Amino acid sequence: MNTKAYGAPAGDKPLEPMDIQRRAPGARDVQIEIKYCGVCHSDLHTVRAEWGGTQFPCVPGHEIVGHVTAVGSDVKSYKVGDTVGVGCLVDSCQRCASCAEGLEQYCENGFVGTYNGPTDDPPGYTFGGYSQRIVVDEKFVLKIRHPEDQLAAVAPLLCAGITTYSPLRHWKAGPGKKVGVVGIGGLGHMGIKLSHAMGAHTVAFTTSEGKRQDALDLGADEVVISKDPAQMAKHAGSFDFILNTVAAPHDLDAFTALLKRDGTMCLVGAPPTPHPSPNVAVLIFGRKAIAGSLIGGLPETQEMLDFCAERGIVSDIEMIKVQDIDHAYERMLKSDVKYRFVIDSATLA
Amino acid sequence: MNTKAYGAPAGDKPLEPMDIQRRAPGARDVQIEIKYCGVCHSDLHTVRAEWGGTQFPCVPGHEIVGHVTAVGSDVKSYKVGDTVGVGCLVDSCQRCASCAEGLEQYCENGFVGTYNGPTDDPPGYTFGGYSQRIVVDEKFVLKIRHPEDQLAAVAPLLCAGITTYSPLRHWKAGPGKKVGVVGIGGLGHMGIKLSHAMGAHTVAFTTSEGKRQDALDLGADEVVISKDPAQMAKHAGSFDFILNTVAAPHDLDAFTALLKRDGTMCLVGAPPTPHPSPNVAVLIFGRKAIAGSLIGGLPETQEMLDFCAERGIVSDIEMIKVQDIDHAYERMLKSDVKYRFVIDSATLA
Repeated sequence: MNTKAYGAPAGDKPLEPMDIQRRAPGARDVQIEIKYCGVCHSDLHTVRAEWGGTQFPCVPGHEIVGHVTAVGSDVKSYKVGDTVGVGCLVDSCQRCASCAEGLEQYCENGFVGTYNGPTDDPPGYTFGGYSQRIVVDEKFVLKIRHPEDQLAAVAPLLCAGITTYSPLRHWKAGPGKKVGVVGIGGLGHMGIKLSHAMGAHTVAFTTSEGKRQDALDLGADEVVISKDPAQMAKHAGSFDFILNTVAAPHDLDAFTALLKRDGTMCLVGAPPTPHPSPNVAVLIFGRKAIAGSLIGGLPETQEMLDFCAERGIVSDIEMIKVQDIDHAYERMLKSDVKYRFVIDSATLA
Repeated sequence: MNTKAYGAPAGDKPLEPMDIQRRAPGARDVQIEIKYCGVCHSDLHTVRAEWGGTQFPCVPGHEIVGHVTAVGSDVKSYKVGDTVGVGCLVDSCQRCASCAEGLEQYCENGFVGTYNGPTDDPPGYTFGGYSQRIVVDEKFVLKIRHPEDQLAAVAPLLCAGITTYSPLRHWKAGPGKKVGVVGIGGLGHMGIKLSHAMGAHTVAFTTSEGKRQDALDLGADEVVISKDPAQMAKHAGSFDFILNTVAAPHDLDAFTALLKRDGTMCLVGAPPTPHPSPNVAVLIFGRKAIAGSLIGGLPETQEMLDFCAERGIVSDIEMIKVQDIDHAYERMLKSDVKYRFVIDSATLA
C-alpha cells in the first residue's frame, strides 16, 4: 500500500514529503490509519543521524494514535474502528526471558523499533508514524480508552508517558513516598502528572524560575530551583526516588545528595557527552543507587494507558502541521514547547 | 587508664609508640584487652591525612578482637573473659530511623568512628585499635564464636568481612545467582569466600593472571582476567550482582555491561579521583544500577560473625609486629599482602 509520509532523505537534509509502502496486513496484523503522532527528541536524533546507524530515507515517529482500518484473520483483540496506539516497539523475539515477562523493551535479542528497526518488509527497516498508516502485529498494538477528543494529547503517552510511568512504578512511587522529577519538558511534565496521580509527594526540579507555576499546575507539591544550593540543601537526604529526565550533561551529585538511604535516582535520558562522573562516596554513605530505565513493555504500556484514561491524564501538547516539523525541531531544541508537539496526520494528505 | 598505643603525631610522620588514656568503664561499657587488630586501607588514608579531617595524634585500627576484662554495672550481654570484637563504629545517635533499623552505619546524625570520631572522652576524638585496650558501649561490641586459635584471622571480618557481607546479603547473593567480585585484595578475598559460602555462582575478576589459582582456592567458581575483552565478552549480560571492591579509578562500563537486566553493581570503595563517568545508555538498556554500600550495622555484623563461625570462615592474614606498621602500609600500597595484615597487640607491651 502506497502511504504518504514525511521523512529525511539524509542526515543533513530537512524532512520532506515522500511515499512509502506498507505491507498488506498478515494474519496477525492490525492496519491503523494514523490520526496523530507525537514528536520525540529521539526522532530528531535519529533523522539527523546523531546517534549513528540511521538508515535513509528515514521516517520517524513512535507516539502513534489512530483507528483500525483492517485486521488479519487471526487477530483477536482488535476490530475495524477501534481506537489504538503504537509506541516505540513493533516487534521483539518473543522467546527470551525479558519478552516472556512482558518486558519487550529489554528483549535480549534486540527489539524492533517503530522506525529504523530491522524488518523483513522492504526496504529492510521500519518507517515510523510521520505517515498516514502503519501495519503492526497485534501484540504491539495498544487499546486506547480515552475519549476521542483527547486523542491527540494521548499520543505522547506512548513514549513520554511510559518512559516515566515505568520507573515510577518499578521504584514504587505512591502514597507516603517523596518523589523528585528533574526537568520539566516532554518527559518531565508527564513524570510530574504521573507521580502526583500515583499519590507520591512530588517535587519538581527545574533550573528555570519561570516554570514554577507550570510545575505546580502539572501537579507538583513543591518546586525547587536546582541552581539554588540553599533550596537544594533543604531537601538533603529526603527523597525515596528521583526520576531524572534531563539528558544534557549535569551534576548528578546535587541530586543523589537529596536521596534517602536506599534511595535511587533513575536516569531516562542518555547524555550526548558524559555527565560529570558521579561521586561514589555519596552512594556509599547511604546505600544509594543511580539506575537507568528504558520506555516500558507492552503490558505495562497498556496499564499506563488505562491508568491515564481512568484519571483523564493526557499530555500537554501543541498541535502542528507535518510541514512545520523542522521548525518544531528547532523550537524543541530550545525547550520552547509546552510540552510536546503532536503532528496532525491529516496534513499529510 | 594509661594505655600503650601506636599512632601518628602528624600526617607526614611515621607511626610511633604513644600513651593514650582510656576512660574507666561506665555503666554500659565493656573494657576489652585487645589481642589483634587488622590493618585496613582506611587506617592509612586517615593517618596520612589523605581524606582531610584527621585529628592528630591519630591512633587508627577498627578490626579489633580481644577479651573482656571489665564490664559496667548495667552491661547484660558480656562478662569478663568473653571473646569479643569491635568494628568501625563505637557509637551512633540511637534515635534516627537508620539506628532504629540497626543500620547504625547510616546514622542520620553521623556515627562515631572507632578512630578519629567525635567523643566526650579527652582529647575529644576516638583512638582506635592499634592499642592495648579499648572501652566501648556494649551495643557496639560483637560476640565472637570462632575458636581462640582463629582469633587473629577473625579480626579483618570486623571491616573487610562486613563490608562485603552486607551488600552480598542486601542484593541477595545465594543459590541460583551469578555474582561477580571485582578485585582480589583485603575486601575482595572476603567477598569471594562469602559469596561462595552463600551459595552463589561466584566469578572473580582480577587484572592479574597470577591471582587465578588463589581466587579458585578462595572459592571462586570462575576467574576472569578483566583486561581481556574476549574473556569479559563471554559473560555479557549474565550477572545478577557485581561487588566491586576496587577503589582505584577504572572503567565501570566494562562491568555494568556484564550485568543482567535489573542487575546492580555495588561499589564499596570510594576512588581518590573519580572513575571515568559511567555510560548511562548501558544502565538504561537493562534497567541496571550502580550503587554503593558502607560496612554494616551491628545486628548484621553479628550475623556475619556467626555465619563465619558456623562455617569456619576467617580472613587470610599475615601477622605483623606493630613496629612494622609503616612497612606494612608500603606493602599494602603495592597489593603485596595475602590478604590482610593483622597486628599482634602483644608487641605493643
